[in-house]
Amino acid sequence: MTKKILILPGDGIGPEIVAEAVKLLDCLRTDFGLAIETEEALVGGAAYDAAGHPLPDQTLALAKTADAVLLGAVGGPKWEPLEIALRPEKGLLGLRSGLGLFANLRPAILYPQLAEASTLKPEVVAGLDIMIVRELTGGIYFGEPRGVETLANGERRGLNSLVYTESEIERICRVAFEIAQKRGRRVCSVDKANVLECTELWREVATRVAGDYPDCELSHMYVDNAAMQLVRAPKQFDVMVTTNMFGDILSDAAAMLTGSIGMLPSASLNADGQGMYEPIHGSAPDIAGQDAANPLATLLSVAMMLRYSLGEPDHADRIEAAVSAVLERGLRTKDIAAPGASAVGTRAMGDAVVDAL
Amino acid sequence: MTKKILILPGDGIGPEIVAEAVKLLDCLRTDFGLAIETEEALVGGAAYDAAGHPLPDQTLALAKTADAVLLGAVGGPKWEPLEIALRPEKGLLGLRSGLGLFANLRPAILYPQLAEASTLKPEVVAGLDIMIVRELTGGIYFGEPRGVETLANGERRGLNSLVYTESEIERICRVAFEIAQKRGRRVCSVDKANVLECTELWREVATRVAGDYPDCELSHMYVDNAAMQLVRAPKQFDVMVTTNMFGDILSDAAAMLTGSIGMLPSASLNADGQGMYEPIHGSAPDIAGQDAANPLATLLSVAMMLRYSLGEPDHADRIEAAVSAVLERGLRTKDIAAPGASAVGTRAMGDAVVDAL
Ligand SMILES: CC(C)[C@H](C(=O)O)[C@@H](O)C(=O)O
Ligand SMILES: CC(C)[C@H](C(=O)O)[C@@H](O)C(=O)O
Repeated sequence: MTKKILILPGDGIGPEIVAEAVKLLDCLRTDFGLAIETEEALVGGAAYDAAGHPLPDQTLALAKTADAVLLGAVGGPKWEPLEIALRPEKGLLGLRSGLGLFANLRPAILYPQLAEASTLKPEVVAGLDIMIVRELTGGIYFGEPRGVETLANGERRGLNSLVYTESEIERICRVAFEIAQKRGRRVCSVDKANVLECTELWREVATRVAGDYPDCELSHMYVDNAAMQLVRAPKQFDVMVTTNMFGDILSDAAAMLTGSIGMLPSASLNADGQGMYEPIHGSAPDIAGQDAANPLATLLSVAMMLRYSLGEPDHADRIEAAVSAVLERGLRTKDIAAPGASAVGTRAMGDAVVDAL
Repeated sequence: MTKKILILPGDGIGPEIVAEAVKLLDCLRTDFGLAIETEEALVGGAAYDAAGHPLPDQTLALAKTADAVLLGAVGGPKWEPLEIALRPEKGLLGLRSGLGLFANLRPAILYPQLAEASTLKPEVVAGLDIMIVRELTGGIYFGEPRGVETLANGERRGLNSLVYTESEIERICRVAFEIAQKRGRRVCSVDKANVLECTELWREVATRVAGDYPDCELSHMYVDNAAMQLVRAPKQFDVMVTTNMFGDILSDAAAMLTGSIGMLPSASLNADGQGMYEPIHGSAPDIAGQDAANPLATLLSVAMMLRYSLGEPDHADRIEAAVSAVLERGLRTKDIAAPGASAVGTRAMGDAVVDAL
């Protein structure tokens, strides 16, 4: 069965980095016999400019019938004056909810070849390998009621709702434990159970779910302490599982510990294993169109896609090995530049990985 | 007029560190003629054990008539099984709301003598001096409705509400700008305006308030990016202002950048300048009663009290200078131990600061 992959370049550097991923997929198809077909569609600011909406119906419909979606990045200053409902980010949020992508996997891995890039001391981050499992279709991102209302005294009041049901908490915790079983078997659930009732329920459900995974160890941590511990001793963590909002904050902090966010992929999965894959860095409008962006996070997102949605773990391993080999050879884009290394552009880096394959 | 200070030792190491602050206050009274009187009361787990509630009515009443409150720390595993309403943390939250302490000031300062303690590379954090201004009596900590309800299908659902009115946002932003005017004149307002309507209102109000402080520069940053930037290049910040929940997370991350949270004080102020002062570290039950805790954050909290609530900035400077002098002499408690430095206990450290005064 030929698998369908929807390609969504998006905004800023999105088109450039996604082009390298398409090269890689072409190589897997022609040289390795991988049965895939790709199609492209609009999302984000590019979709707003072309069709008046950051997530055109047609894009969502194509995404629903695809086995996997590869996204570049969305957003840019050009669209910031728009109302929230029309901003590029809504394209992303609409895909997440429209496809039911409740499980966001964000690895924070330090590549030994890039250890110097971190702002943290080498001994604190050497060998870092954390998997953050973030709930992605619930919580305060989607909770109702929401909005801004005017009070009787004429003053306005903004409101958002943090909401989780037991089943929403349970399914994301199961994902975390299942991943932990293939890694270090330790799950740290992050909440603010000493203040927020909603996350007190989170803690209770996480504890109950842990009973089904006796081979794993569950710990709980308050979110403020988790933010501290990521700075103090990040290697204490194996898998972290948390809410949509806390996961947004902590996964970015964890990513930055590595000093090379241009290297980090992500996966967003639904209950059927269908997934959307994207680099965690943004659309970087300031360097768009200059052949300066690092395509490796996008290529590593393709690896995650092969592993989690296409059932091709060997191809995933192959891509990851090719990326390592290219780093080993000393090739570096600007963001990971180092004295003595060879500076290359987006396309040359993509070519090098395809060659290494 | 004699100023009244309410002393709340609290739990864990609270009583020990507060005892050193009382020594310091006694010295200021007897040797420097400072007109103060102190009284002590119960809060947190200690209050629950003695009186069945983490914030007895009498404690709140005394706090209301005091010019300033000095708090040690609350909480510990002993009280974790209690329901949220009776936990030690509720004592703290009750004081904040009962006294209307909406402005939480959390400096993150790297002491040059302790530069090695940071997990970050020296060039990234040398000279770090950020002031985080956190809203403390609103937002999701206090928003209604809240709680856990059972749905028609028998499933439970947890809910908390993020709520801010324009006037709540305005007054905390004013505090941030007024502090910035005495520092680097730069305010970074942190929100999630691309997703949360409540913080879109926050951004709008912050922008409006900035108009009254033309000598200051306002920037906006999304909270996930702020968490990243604190790790990547923390010295870019002067004053940060944000919501209760985001401030909880970011101020702890910022504090940990210094590597010595045993050194960091905080102030929580209301509209009348009345304030509660406390070290940002917790009650550390594991080392309680061992003369091992670092009292410096508490002594520096007394300095903040003198500056912000008692109108005695000279005494505040004097305490800060005394702490620096003691560090310069090489005295270190366990948490900031360094090769070649003299290890001292809680009491010896307190004595040394009083002597240096
Ligand atoms: C762009 C924004 C809506 C998004 C989020 O907050 O989820 C981004 O920060 C992310 O983490 O993918
Ligand atoms: C103890 C807890 C309720 C408190 C908070 O979340 O505000 C603490 O973390 C703090 O930052 O002072």
